[in-house]
Amino acid sequence: MRKVGIIGMGHVGSAVAHALVQEGTFDEFVLIDKKVEKVRAEALDLEDALANQNESYKIVMNDYAALDDADVVISALGNIQLQHNNPSKDRFIELPYNVEQVREVAGQLKKTDFSGVLVVITNPCDAIAALYQKETGYPVERVIATGTLLDTARMRRATGAAFDVSPKSVAGYNLGEHGNTQFTAWSTVSVMGQSAKDAAAAKDVDLAEIEKDSVVGGYTVFAGKGFTSYGIASAAIRLAKAIVSDAHEELPVSHYQEAFGTYLSTPAIVGRQGIVAESTLTLTEDEKEKLAASAKSISDKFAEVVQGQQ
Amino acid sequence: MRKVGIIGMGHVGSAVAHALVQEGTFDEFVLIDKKVEKVRAEALDLEDALANQNESYKIVMNDYAALDDADVVISALGNIQLQHNNPSKDRFIELPYNVEQVREVAGQLKKTDFSGVLVVITNPCDAIAALYQKETGYPVERVIATGTLLDTARMRRATGAAFDVSPKSVAGYNLGEHGNTQFTAWSTVSVMGQSAKDAAAAKDVDLAEIEKDSVVGGYTVFAGKGFTSYGIASAAIRLAKAIVSDAHEELPVSHYQEAFGTYLSTPAIVGRQGIVAESTLTLTEDEKEKLAASAKSISDKFAEVVQGQQ
Amino acid sequence: MRKVGIIGMGHVGSAVAHALVQEGTFDEFVLIDKKVEKVRAEALDLEDALANQNESYKIVMNDYAALDDADVVISALGNIQLQHNNPSKDRFIELPYNVEQVREVAGQLKKTDFSGVLVVITNPCDAIAALYQKETGYPVERVIATGTLLDTARMRRATGAAFDVSPKSVAGYNLGEHGNTQFTAWSTVSVMGQSAKDAAAAKDVDLAEIEKDSVVGGYTVFAGKGFTSYGIASAAIRLAKAIVSDAHEELPVSHYQEAFGTYLSTPAIVGRQGIVAESTLTLTEDEKEKLAASAKSISDKFAEVVQGQQ
Amino acid sequence: MRKVGIIGMGHVGSAVAHALVQEGTFDEFVLIDKKVEKVRAEALDLEDALANQNESYKIVMNDYAALDDADVVISALGNIQLQHNNPSKDRFIELPYNVEQVREVAGQLKKTDFSGVLVVITNPCDAIAALYQKETGYPVERVIATGTLLDTARMRRATGAAFDVSPKSVAGYNLGEHGNTQFTAWSTVSVMGQSAKDAAAAKDVDLAEIEKDSVVGGYTVFAGKGFTSYGIASAAIRLAKAIVSDAHEELPVSHYQEAFGTYLSTPAIVGRQGIVAESTLTLTEDEKEKLAASAKSISDKFAEVVQGQQ
Repeated sequence: MRKVGIIGMGHVGSAVAHALVQEGTFDEFVLIDKKVEKVRAEALDLEDALANQNESYKIVMNDYAALDDADVVISALGNIQLQHNNPSKDRFIELPYNVEQVREVAGQLKKTDFSGVLVVITNPCDAIAALYQKETGYPVERVIATGTLLDTARMRRATGAAFDVSPKSVAGYNLGEHGNTQFTAWSTVSVMGQSAKDAAAAKDVDLAEIEKDSVVGGYTVFAGKGFTSYGIASAAIRLAKAIVSDAHEELPVSHYQEAFGTYLSTPAIVGRQGIVAESTLTLTEDEKEKLAASAKSISDKFAEVVQGQQ
Repeated sequence: MRKVGIIGMGHVGSAVAHALVQEGTFDEFVLIDKKVEKVRAEALDLEDALANQNESYKIVMNDYAALDDADVVISALGNIQLQHNNPSKDRFIELPYNVEQVREVAGQLKKTDFSGVLVVITNPCDAIAALYQKETGYPVERVIATGTLLDTARMRRATGAAFDVSPKSVAGYNLGEHGNTQFTAWSTVSVMGQSAKDAAAAKDVDLAEIEKDSVVGGYTVFAGKGFTSYGIASAAIRLAKAIVSDAHEELPVSHYQEAFGTYLSTPAIVGRQGIVAESTLTLTEDEKEKLAASAKSISDKFAEVVQGQQ
Repeated sequence: MRKVGIIGMGHVGSAVAHALVQEGTFDEFVLIDKKVEKVRAEALDLEDALANQNESYKIVMNDYAALDDADVVISALGNIQLQHNNPSKDRFIELPYNVEQVREVAGQLKKTDFSGVLVVITNPCDAIAALYQKETGYPVERVIATGTLLDTARMRRATGAAFDVSPKSVAGYNLGEHGNTQFTAWSTVSVMGQSAKDAAAAKDVDLAEIEKDSVVGGYTVFAGKGFTSYGIASAAIRLAKAIVSDAHEELPVSHYQEAFGTYLSTPAIVGRQGIVAESTLTLTEDEKEKLAASAKSISDKFAEVVQGQQ
Repeated sequence: MRKVGIIGMGHVGSAVAHALVQEGTFDEFVLIDKKVEKVRAEALDLEDALANQNESYKIVMNDYAALDDADVVISALGNIQLQHNNPSKDRFIELPYNVEQVREVAGQLKKTDFSGVLVVITNPCDAIAALYQKETGYPVERVIATGTLLDTARMRRATGAAFDVSPKSVAGYNLGEHGNTQFTAWSTVSVMGQSAKDAAAAKDVDLAEIEKDSVVGGYTVFAGKGFTSYGIASAAIRLAKAIVSDAHEELPVSHYQEAFGTYLSTPAIVGRQGIVAESTLTLTEDEKEKLAASAKSISDKFAEVVQGQQ
């Protein structure tokens, strides 16, 4: 049977749970949140759906021991309030708060026999994934952040709209930090049989606008609804499915990269053991520099904030 | 192709849209909300999910004309804030606000060629369905409220829990108003081959507790998360699917009943034309009285509030 | 992760596998058939579908050891050729052939660590389930035959057609042998809020015709396409899903019944441990007699054929 | 609502119908076959599944008029027996028989108001699509053959297996005839961030073997089970979904190409209007020659056989 844990039942954690129960993807859910009334309310609201849904599932609340045999645990905790007065539009604003929470969660996870894959949504997700890995001692391949899987989806959405094709028919990636130093690696992007650059030239499409959209698209959603949820939920769900079905699917997710000494998003092959292989991109010199700069940005902030607190 | 309109992109409307796109149930969505930034944010958040989802769909925003060829329109508008200081725990607190909104929406719907089924979630949903029908002039069978489909799911959830069986394997209904005068028609409820009363007697289960849970269950969810969304979303989705697939499924939904001169929930057969037939329940005398009283409660409030405003 | 084994890749086993991969229900399939070229062809044909399907899965062939951690094993083996010259229209014609195959399969299963639930489609499925249980020594609750789950679906299809409602909105069961001694327990059947008898009287529906259709419906399919597959596949799939999700769903399936000393279909509660509880039906005297007669028929044939061969 | 017609209820047509009902993709099915007993048996077998499935649908049999408002019609007719003594392993062996059937079907379609997209599986599908288009007079963009969508899936399956990645994570196409003159356009294929050629060189993978597998893979399946069904069914289903949801997905399907004066598979953008745009591939000289040769092969055979019969 398939079992998933979701830690943090805010907007994102709840949206992940709702989509998964609607699809019948998992057989058992372990929902964890320190706000006991909140997690009980979300669980009850989901259970009120069961009689009208196709598939069946069970919900367990606030029981870390129930994660022993989970396939996937998703960290969706966060404090979106901190983002509401954040002039820098920087996901690092949540870091101090989240660091404390993550340490507590990691401590609880270590007491379990969980041997599946930890999927990190909690922002800034690259640094938080690194922190989870450090605190739990899990092998690096078993701690993955959604990273630029969401930003890549945004780039594909914007590129698809520009060329009137499905986002699913756009190839290529946003790389680096799930944050402001990320970039679209245009040399990897293709659409309708052509490189994005050639295609854009032929149709007078402004790739810089698309890239900007993919990076700041989240802020438009945030400004309009006060948080983002469905885009990031679908990224986490796709990752969770690739893990539980051992799909060996290539996804641009944040994982530990020896070469950079940090977590960072580039495409990797995902299966039941987490990251099972690396893709080998042939980037331009400019893209290589951006990737290195993005890696350094993550490392620096991680070192400063996390290690400064110890 | 399948097309759905959702009017009101608050917690419930958004949850309906998210579940439907995740499942790929509809090909085209028309999302309508007077808060333009909000509906744009929800649409963009859903579109950010597309590249990571299985199925494809299109989203149109705030365009009533796009409802011309819709199969189903779901009214999910409301003002949950009004519930937050509501000592009566009565869904009628939203009526005055919603009446005004509904009149405006109905006016817009009348200008379209929409010939599908209107599904009303907006509370108090029995009265609001009546209002929509009156204002649009649609045939009564084509305006349906979710009614006690949700309350029935809650009763089945609680009964299932008491007997350790799936809510899907509990038969029977909550009837009447989607509100405080509703009741569980225990004579219709059975589980594990027995009537609920016999089964309860044998296992020392307190049916009154279950009934209370089914009626006030929503308030527990409301208290814990500030609104309810997933349970009601799944009820609306089940109804929408029964309509678009012309399933002729029996569902306890609120529909106009000649005998009572009002909208009221009892089981009916639902298909592409809306209500296509009525089930014939053999209720006890006590249940008949409760049903009549519930009908009168809806009629009275509807007359007072709606007609008083004219 | 979810894992299923399918033993016998004829028309039925293949249809089960195809539907399950199309839905993405299981993560791993173990396909077993003595016709090596056949099972390889089916597996390759399924793998040729993967790039065009939503979900991912793995296929393992002819490896009993891979069943160690399976949730469900479905026995779909049989010899439909034997049915093609069978004037008695009796599923017992396949018994001698299947007994030999089942003994071999059971011997292989005993060598594995399989601790899930064995679902038997192989006909005559009541007797074959008994044989599997005897040969494997598995607890009786972990060996289940699809039994009258299919016949009940046929009864609901025919009843639904007569009343113009969905088969899903017809309650009630066919009971007894998945064979000629089964019967529709009309006292358990209801539709549109009424007992089947009352509803039939009001609409001049002939219940005897419906019952006959449910019992011999399979022969109509068999006559037209040379075998039956989709109806039985969906029954096995529903059962497999109830098991893996621990749904505790009530299903009319064939299970060992102490009172009759044999496998026989009446409604029971199905979960991850197999049969987890019994429903308690209040049958008419006539129905009780038919059920006892059907039980005796299974016992007698099982004793004669199986024990005679030892 | 979504409506599909399936013409020809042999192995492939039936597998398409079964997968679509299991998923609940369409609301209405029109099943057509001259073998009346066969189509009735298939329809009944599907209807026997309904009570145990999640979604609802309707089946109409042998009624061309019911195609008036269909979104998609799938031609799955054929005569697999003709392949059983076919030393050439050439899909053109079925042409004379199928030409006659197709002319009859086209004549029936012309009498309807069908304005959706015709999806051709019937082999040799490139020539048959051309014939359907000619006989019906439908705009070329509304007649599409599955073409090398299946062969591409086979290439991705074999490439994925060689590199231990999901077939879904292999990019690139088989082009040309859905037959022996097709080829893998290796310049379009990439895996794990590298061109197939570079990736193959690094891992000592033999691309010629993979290409051979993709072209003759169908014969392995055919040899083992006597026909192929699941791979081709999933290709047709993916195409049908892209059409009904207006997905604008890029798929390597056979469509009329002005430049070659024939039907031929190269990637194109598929939506509700059928082919809505063309991808622009940058092929090598060698690949261009192969594509031209494949086009000529289709044209020649089409001219010879079809026109010779007039």
